[in-house]
Amino acid sequence: MEAATLSRIGLAGLAVMGQNLALNIAEKGFPISVYNRTTSKVDETVDRAKHEGHLPLTGHHNPRDFILSIERPRSVIILVKAGAPVDQTIATLSEHMDQGDCIIDGGNEWYENTERRIQQANEKGLLYLGMGVSGGEEGARNGPSLMPGGSYEAYKNIEDIVRKVAAQVEDGPCVTYIGEGGSGNFVKMVHNGIEYGDMQLISEAYDVLKTVGGLSNSELAEIFDEWNRGELESFLIEITADIFKVKDEYGDGELVDKILDKTGMKGTGKWTVQQAAELSVAAPTIAASLDCRYLSGLKEEREAAAGVLKEAGLKEDVGAARVGVDKKRLIDDVRQALYASKVCSYAQGMNLLRAKSNEKGWNLNLGELARIWKGGCIIRAVFLDRIKKAYQRNPNLASLVVDPEFAKEMVQRQAAWRRVVGLAISAGISTPGMCASLAYFDTYRRARLPANLVQAQRDLFGAHTYERIDRPGSFHTEWTKLARKSADGVAALR
Amino acid sequence: MEAATLSRIGLAGLAVMGQNLALNIAEKGFPISVYNRTTSKVDETVDRAKHEGHLPLTGHHNPRDFILSIERPRSVIILVKAGAPVDQTIATLSEHMDQGDCIIDGGNEWYENTERRIQQANEKGLLYLGMGVSGGEEGARNGPSLMPGGSYEAYKNIEDIVRKVAAQVEDGPCVTYIGEGGSGNFVKMVHNGIEYGDMQLISEAYDVLKTVGGLSNSELAEIFDEWNRGELESFLIEITADIFKVKDEYGDGELVDKILDKTGMKGTGKWTVQQAAELSVAAPTIAASLDCRYLSGLKEEREAAAGVLKEAGLKEDVGAARVGVDKKRLIDDVRQALYASKVCSYAQGMNLLRAKSNEKGWNLNLGELARIWKGGCIIRAVFLDRIKKAYQRNPNLASLVVDPEFAKEMVQRQAAWRRVVGLAISAGISTPGMCASLAYFDTYRRARLPANLVQAQRDLFGAHTYERIDRPGSFHTEWTKLARKSADGVAALR
Repeated sequence: MEAATLSRIGLAGLAVMGQNLALNIAEKGFPISVYNRTTSKVDETVDRAKHEGHLPLTGHHNPRDFILSIERPRSVIILVKAGAPVDQTIATLSEHMDQGDCIIDGGNEWYENTERRIQQANEKGLLYLGMGVSGGEEGARNGPSLMPGGSYEAYKNIEDIVRKVAAQVEDGPCVTYIGEGGSGNFVKMVHNGIEYGDMQLISEAYDVLKTVGGLSNSELAEIFDEWNRGELESFLIEITADIFKVKDEYGDGELVDKILDKTGMKGTGKWTVQQAAELSVAAPTIAASLDCRYLSGLKEEREAAAGVLKEAGLKEDVGAARVGVDKKRLIDDVRQALYASKVCSYAQGMNLLRAKSNEKGWNLNLGELARIWKGGCIIRAVFLDRIKKAYQRNPNLASLVVDPEFAKEMVQRQAAWRRVVGLAISAGISTPGMCASLAYFDTYRRARLPANLVQAQRDLFGAHTYERIDRPGSFHTEWTKLARKSADGVAALR
Repeated sequence: MEAATLSRIGLAGLAVMGQNLALNIAEKGFPISVYNRTTSKVDETVDRAKHEGHLPLTGHHNPRDFILSIERPRSVIILVKAGAPVDQTIATLSEHMDQGDCIIDGGNEWYENTERRIQQANEKGLLYLGMGVSGGEEGARNGPSLMPGGSYEAYKNIEDIVRKVAAQVEDGPCVTYIGEGGSGNFVKMVHNGIEYGDMQLISEAYDVLKTVGGLSNSELAEIFDEWNRGELESFLIEITADIFKVKDEYGDGELVDKILDKTGMKGTGKWTVQQAAELSVAAPTIAASLDCRYLSGLKEEREAAAGVLKEAGLKEDVGAARVGVDKKRLIDDVRQALYASKVCSYAQGMNLLRAKSNEKGWNLNLGELARIWKGGCIIRAVFLDRIKKAYQRNPNLASLVVDPEFAKEMVQRQAAWRRVVGLAISAGISTPGMCASLAYFDTYRRARLPANLVQAQRDLFGAHTYERIDRPGSFHTEWTKLARKSADGVAALR
């Protein structure tokens, strides 16, 4: 410990994410103090700092020493479990903090909790930031995408640090001041929702290629490697290629085939879907990815259902036995379907962010958000640069799919997209995310929907009234009476 | 006013629903007192009672007289706007109520508000029921479906009344004691979610028949009339047939074509989707119906999108120009697709109810719920009798689609269902609800999903670990390292 000089910043909560982020900060030349309730984690981190290059990191075993070791105004990042542990950590640390000091919560916190804590911090003269951190353990160590929201003053205090610590892409570091209140957490939440969508769409591409196309794991690895050199280039495509290459250490073949098809999840995906409903924003691709996780969890029920329906006469996985699939064309079609579905998913996420920004007055810069997701985070992709540019062309873009460049891409890919989804449907394998994206696209791009019938129904049974296409005003009709009269009229004429 | 004899029950809140329900109660021979803050509504109701057969209904202009005119233990139904107005009405009325009296909220209230009010009522020695009422204005007058939840004692006090007032079907009145707490409101909420799904699916059937099949309104009227004599027989199919028959009074053709395709909505649909997410239950068909309402509201955006994508080369409504559609077969296919999609939507709603019942210990009887929806309410249908029987056969049925009878029906209809959805997709018109149902079916009935890949991805970037299909335990793999090693190995062998 070098008690003589004060650290530039502090970090409390030394699970792997916290350790890695602290080491990253130290490595960038910012002396850092670290603290953890379980003190062995502190020693572990100090040890790592020593072995990873004598980094300027000092460990503390009690909160008071920890706080007093940081230069003022103090900035303290906390990385503990969302919810009550955050409140406990804040209570412990803030006792020793002074006016103008700041707590920065780097967890996946519900944005309203952050807004409450901002309020509470302000009452004590403290500043507060809710900072989304994406990139997992590896990103935290080598360059995450950072989404700090809350006090602008507090952001300015750490701006030099986070700009160096974040992942670097050609147009700058993957961090920006997101906006006031809980905006940093909200943006991270939607990022995670989009991530769920991406993973679902990739798993569907895999399913179609494997089940309908009959591709082997080594073929799949090759294809994903190839896709990673084109428009789909992204972290998730890259790691998917890697996954297909890993052999099973317990037996023949690849490990991926031995993994149980039950998916876990965390709260952020659920919150994204609930917020979409709250804000009347359609986010069906993201919702489909959640639904598939729920249904994947019902493994025993699914096995039973497969049995019952087989008994009732259903042939499962008809696609596997399908002949006459042109493999090469299928692969190319799936690539296009994946891309087009992805655009729709991002359009949903971006529109959700805009709706919340309007509600809360956050003034989110959607193009800038796309930019800071270009590196560091799980959804990092070349594709995000195109989204950034679309919003630069038109900051008020109603939807990504009507940006002229994306519109052209969607039109070029729609035939392949429809072929893939149609093929999957006839093969009985279902591609819920791709279906949801396509239905979203076809609904959004349609000037006239059959919603006129729904309005007529609502007016008939609930007197909800309706509008007309050809004259202003709100109308109510005695539908049943008129229908019966007209039917009588027809009968009388006969 | 007949101050001499006390009324059997009271009703406060005399908008059309309230008036109609009060008249219905009076007509069944139960003397009723009514009250409304705006007193003209009281006089209006008294007037209606006189003209609709000198019904035993007395009007009151102040809350004290109103309450004192009811025999003890008093039961008072309130039908005011959900939220704050309910609290205000309770405050006004409960001032004059005594131990053991009961307030019955008949509005579309959020179930947690009801649970809070039950608590507050209990503190004052009052009883409380949250009673879902379905059937619209017409149902309230002639026989609604009633879903009372909360105090069982309070239910027993009004059981004779509600059993006479409710719609009557061959196996009893459309009312039952739902369960404790806010269960009555929750069940009504899910009923409404299912109603949204039904309306969406019908509008999609209409869309396919009209846009792809080229059917006229009179043909549509005929088909829906015919469907209403078969397995789809239901209130919503019946009124849809009627809607197509109504001529436009301002011009040529039918009114339905002149209605603006922007759909309104209320809170219950949104809550259903949010609760599904909360409980990790997939309800994609209901969610799709909500999404379509949101998107229908963006009329101007949709028109602009149609323009932009047309410029980018997209042909809209390709289906309209489609040749070679066999009308007769299409009609039969659409009927089957609608039925199968509907089964999935009800399966979602029922599973949502069961999940909540398990969480809250409500002990909901799903078969009995299907039974009380057979009459009076908007989703009333012959079909609900089959659902009732499915749960009678097996109260622990995991999903409607695995009931042997439904399973057989699904298998019989799946080819037609896939044809319709596939045709709609290739025609570019999208059937979001039917797609969602089909994807749900294909996901639920599949023993092996591609979720193994998602688990591998999560383990790779987040060290979330995974399970295996062939041995117990939880595993973590250094995917990237192994993939690169194996790739090197392959390269070395070359």
